[in-house]
Amino acid sequence: MKFLVPLGFTLMTLLPASAALVGKSIDYSDDHGAPLEGYVVYDDAISGPRPGVIVIHDWRGLSDETKRRADMLAKLGYIAFAADVYGKGVRPQSVPEFGKQAGKYRGDRALFRARERAAYQELLKQPQVDPTRVAAIGYCFGGTGVIEMARDGLDLKGVVSFHGGLDAQPLSPGATIKAKVLALCGADDPFEKPEDMKAFEQQLRDDKVDYQIVFYGHAVHAFTDPGVDALNQPGAKYNAAADRRSWQAMRDFLAEIFAM
Amino acid sequence: MKFLVPLGFTLMTLLPASAALVGKSIDYSDDHGAPLEGYVVYDDAISGPRPGVIVIHDWRGLSDETKRRADMLAKLGYIAFAADVYGKGVRPQSVPEFGKQAGKYRGDRALFRARERAAYQELLKQPQVDPTRVAAIGYCFGGTGVIEMARDGLDLKGVVSFHGGLDAQPLSPGATIKAKVLALCGADDPFEKPEDMKAFEQQLRDDKVDYQIVFYGHAVHAFTDPGVDALNQPGAKYNAAADRRSWQAMRDFLAEIFAM
Repeated sequence: MKFLVPLGFTLMTLLPASAALVGKSIDYSDDHGAPLEGYVVYDDAISGPRPGVIVIHDWRGLSDETKRRADMLAKLGYIAFAADVYGKGVRPQSVPEFGKQAGKYRGDRALFRARERAAYQELLKQPQVDPTRVAAIGYCFGGTGVIEMARDGLDLKGVVSFHGGLDAQPLSPGATIKAKVLALCGADDPFEKPEDMKAFEQQLRDDKVDYQIVFYGHAVHAFTDPGVDALNQPGAKYNAAADRRSWQAMRDFLAEIFAM
Repeated sequence: MKFLVPLGFTLMTLLPASAALVGKSIDYSDDHGAPLEGYVVYDDAISGPRPGVIVIHDWRGLSDETKRRADMLAKLGYIAFAADVYGKGVRPQSVPEFGKQAGKYRGDRALFRARERAAYQELLKQPQVDPTRVAAIGYCFGGTGVIEMARDGLDLKGVVSFHGGLDAQPLSPGATIKAKVLALCGADDPFEKPEDMKAFEQQLRDDKVDYQIVFYGHAVHAFTDPGVDALNQPGAKYNAAADRRSWQAMRDFLAEIFAM
């Protein structure tokens, strides 16, 4: 029955045949002058400003997987900016290095937020972006990171956390959370402690944040990452159904927040 | 930017201009001969079999609100069947009567399941239905009910529970759960006890059911029902954002399970 084709394909057919992604590395820096190297990508066949989506990488740092997600967003018609939290040239290559870098920023939320704020500011400089319609998505470490961006009071329409480590943390001084929040979680993620999740939700409730939390049954940590299985990390595994469904949930969310 | 129109509108434009809903009451009965009166609706402009969706009513019984949801499903291209759990002519009109009827079936799950099985069997008799692609959705009392249909082992592709009372219950003798499960919940629903929800989820986990649970922040019981506010029930309130989002989540779910 032709009326029930998957919605995603319907939208894709609206892209002009000449659609061509333009992706490039971009040098920028944070407020303290630390050099950072991000990646910006957009569809050159679209003219005029469009909503922007920042992508915060997982604990590996800005990788091909981060860029793949940015490209997927650009194909949806957005301008995507893959942020570099760790710094230019800081591209850890082993599990201990992943943990060391991620731990540094998890343990210093002010620094974490400063690095993310720099990405937000850099995205706003791009001529293709509609500065009134910006969101952020992030994976694992970056799934924690996008919530930190919201707590930093950035003028984001929304943030999407994919299997992020979620807990309660103080807002930046003088900040209020402006972003709507969508948290996409593995129901069996062993890195998500129930008491931390409860505190996370309570903070959003108390702060009157517009939030949604989705649990995907049987999914564990890093369920969106096709490359994670090769790392043999206990409690982290790719889950194709949860990957597909969480991406669809993100699409619905972005369509909603950017239509306002 | 034209690429970011809400997906729903894109799909609707595929419906032919001559689309005309045909809705009618239908008499049927359960295995014990109890007379029931449901409502079937489909788009007459669509030819050939199409997926079917059973709608299980809330504690008020089969009402105009139930029919409204069935009509919405028919507009999406499905054939919808609004089930009658309470029985022909049993249309309670007050809160005490709602509670009495709903309590009767909540307290007798075998009877509840028998009434729902009758609806499933009746839907399969309709010439417009593709019997291999059937799902069920339900609200409040009916949100409990669709989980009971899954526990009854019916050959459903999926069930969607909107603010249903959820807990653990034994399966019907010899049954396995074949349906995928999507539970759409108000994060602040006071009728949803955390320990019951935990038991519900544990049962799905143990039985290896493909499930997803969504919590809508600040939403309480009956968040999809525009008419609930007039009843002045503590802990029950319409929430437009949660209504819109949960409907979209259902659409994505139906598109996924019926495409297989």
